[in-house]
Amino acid sequence: MDVHDLTRKLQLQNDSKIVLLVADGLGGLPLTLGGKTELETANTPHLDALTKTGVLGLSTPVLPGITPGSGPGHLGLFGYDPLQYQIGRGVLEGLGIDFDLGPNDVAIRGNFCTLDADGKITDRRAGRIASEIGAKLCEKLDKITIPGVEVFVRPVKEYRLVVVFRGPGLEGNVEDTDPQKTGVPPLDPVARDAGSQKTADVAKEFLRQAKEVLKNDHPANFFTMRGIDRKPPIPSFKEVYGLRAAAIAVYPMYRGLARLVSMDVLDAGQTLDDQCARLEKVWNDYDFFFLHYKYTDSTGEDGNFPEKVKKIEQLDAVMPRIAALKPTVLIVTGDHSTPSKLKSHSWHPVPVLLAADTCRPDACTTFGEQSCLSGGLGQFPAKHLMLLAMAHAGRFEKFGA
Amino acid sequence: MDVHDLTRKLQLQNDSKIVLLVADGLGGLPLTLGGKTELETANTPHLDALTKTGVLGLSTPVLPGITPGSGPGHLGLFGYDPLQYQIGRGVLEGLGIDFDLGPNDVAIRGNFCTLDADGKITDRRAGRIASEIGAKLCEKLDKITIPGVEVFVRPVKEYRLVVVFRGPGLEGNVEDTDPQKTGVPPLDPVARDAGSQKTADVAKEFLRQAKEVLKNDHPANFFTMRGIDRKPPIPSFKEVYGLRAAAIAVYPMYRGLARLVSMDVLDAGQTLDDQCARLEKVWNDYDFFFLHYKYTDSTGEDGNFPEKVKKIEQLDAVMPRIAALKPTVLIVTGDHSTPSKLKSHSWHPVPVLLAADTCRPDACTTFGEQSCLSGGLGQFPAKHLMLLAMAHAGRFEKFGA
Repeated sequence: MDVHDLTRKLQLQNDSKIVLLVADGLGGLPLTLGGKTELETANTPHLDALTKTGVLGLSTPVLPGITPGSGPGHLGLFGYDPLQYQIGRGVLEGLGIDFDLGPNDVAIRGNFCTLDADGKITDRRAGRIASEIGAKLCEKLDKITIPGVEVFVRPVKEYRLVVVFRGPGLEGNVEDTDPQKTGVPPLDPVARDAGSQKTADVAKEFLRQAKEVLKNDHPANFFTMRGIDRKPPIPSFKEVYGLRAAAIAVYPMYRGLARLVSMDVLDAGQTLDDQCARLEKVWNDYDFFFLHYKYTDSTGEDGNFPEKVKKIEQLDAVMPRIAALKPTVLIVTGDHSTPSKLKSHSWHPVPVLLAADTCRPDACTTFGEQSCLSGGLGQFPAKHLMLLAMAHAGRFEKFGA
Repeated sequence: MDVHDLTRKLQLQNDSKIVLLVADGLGGLPLTLGGKTELETANTPHLDALTKTGVLGLSTPVLPGITPGSGPGHLGLFGYDPLQYQIGRGVLEGLGIDFDLGPNDVAIRGNFCTLDADGKITDRRAGRIASEIGAKLCEKLDKITIPGVEVFVRPVKEYRLVVVFRGPGLEGNVEDTDPQKTGVPPLDPVARDAGSQKTADVAKEFLRQAKEVLKNDHPANFFTMRGIDRKPPIPSFKEVYGLRAAAIAVYPMYRGLARLVSMDVLDAGQTLDDQCARLEKVWNDYDFFFLHYKYTDSTGEDGNFPEKVKKIEQLDAVMPRIAALKPTVLIVTGDHSTPSKLKSHSWHPVPVLLAADTCRPDACTTFGEQSCLSGGLGQFPAKHLMLLAMAHAGRFEKFGA
């Protein structure tokens, strides 16, 4: 049984407020044997105080041992099985630049590349051209027209771009054209099934014209296509939980992920204070608030342990401001672990803090990985977190008589 | 989604080495209230030392409360859902005598039995005839011919034998002929579906001839058939994990289970030292090593608590030799529990020790059931252990962007 068939049936309306604060890549590792993780090292008096009324645990984003990207990580937190709802790279890239993908859109991630006189790739990233140059080339490509299809070309950053084809009958099952190596020409777009033939044809015609358009723009005189895909049909947050949901996220990728489940994406400003101000302003207009904090992940990716500790402490500092709104349920967690030691996302379980008046307290008094290990929530799949949020918000009726 | 669709997609190649050391039936129970289990009683300084860099947990072989046989126990450890991949007893028995079952083979476990003058069973195990007698009778039965089908008859031990029919169109869905009681004649082999009718016909003809062949061999003047089945199609270890896998197991059953997932089955000698010598010799030729140690199970089955303790200590003594090879991931666990107190396999969760540089340490300092209960791996399905092994070996790429 799809868990959302259950949530659709059991959901109740009331005045409760749920805050889901995602500190991206929150979980970590000690640098040395017997040492502490970033979260354990950080001085977090406010988060620790929340453990008194709250309950701790560790969530598994996808499955044990599976390291999630941001997409699967967040879908899990939103209560969608990340294995059931898989999102192509093109779609994520489109979401990541705030492009509003519709149901008839096929999104493609593009990489500008350099071709030699024989049409062979000599640089798969076109010498990492500056973002301004990439943006200008995208403007040129955006003017290409193909009968019966709308074409959008948008810059991402440096050599990266997004191409969107909009039109009826476009399926997303088409092979990448990036051969993943130099010394060979880019591949032709090949449909993996009959339904995607039109998309492959459109892509081929687009690339034919693009080669002409870019021929004098060395080193970025062509581009390859990857992650050609459509936005998967995902039931809305409103429908599956009955929640009016607002996303207050600074970075486009996370705004895009919230948009994927039809949250309202609000202006979040640039800082945690901006985000808190927005939260206070719209407090009465929504039932559920997704706040995203990027810097615990980016410092982890940089392998900068002390800086990740500092970013956690900065997050801790705004907790009183959020708590002052008296949310019925306040959850602080991550979408995955990003240990500074590994300089990358990892598969390690993610610390979870859930504070509500209806928690059965555990013995934990600090928010950290070791502490979470003996927390009342145990270890559980991230996709079940929303069920707990709904329950503690009094938003589920009894199942069965 | 099949978890192996995921592992096929995410698997990476590198130089890492994974050792899975299975101490059969490792988990135990205290004999008295407040007492310790076999593993907790054993003096295991080397295993305990591994807990410092490692992480502990408890695995559930099939489902809580379900006691597994060796087949499901090992398939779970190899990462195959034991409920999805079920292996008939005939197939297991065939694997257990190193018989190389092919895709067109139907394997049957046979029990020599004693029939009276009326054809009724008087002894379902033919007075537990000596293995030599069983072997001679099997030689006679092996000469039986049936048009269009190859027939193989092999002795197992005492009154037990294996019959294999090889040929096209043989399905395995046929009822046992063992009536499970005395005083009645053996049953006829009855097909449970149309596709298995040919197998039932072949079995019937074989039994007709066998009765004639054995008529003067009282007390073993006939035999019954059980667990008639084909080898299920199981994707290979190489394919689902990209691992060159070697099995270093002394006992045929475990060699057979490794063969089932297409591991290379190596000469393992007779002792742990032999196994270690083999491991050292082939260290550079494989990525994954399955070592099997039988005696923790057999002493448990005997109800011999102190002997099981001793066998665990003997295992502990070879740990330095394995650790000296510096495996990237070293796992020590069991395929199920075999508490001496119960003298049988049991459903109790199984201690797991996973040592790798990428572990998030827990507070455990000894390897035992109580200790594992607070381990960082928590309690988890055994079929997820391979995912963790692959992750810690750096052999998975990120899932989704």
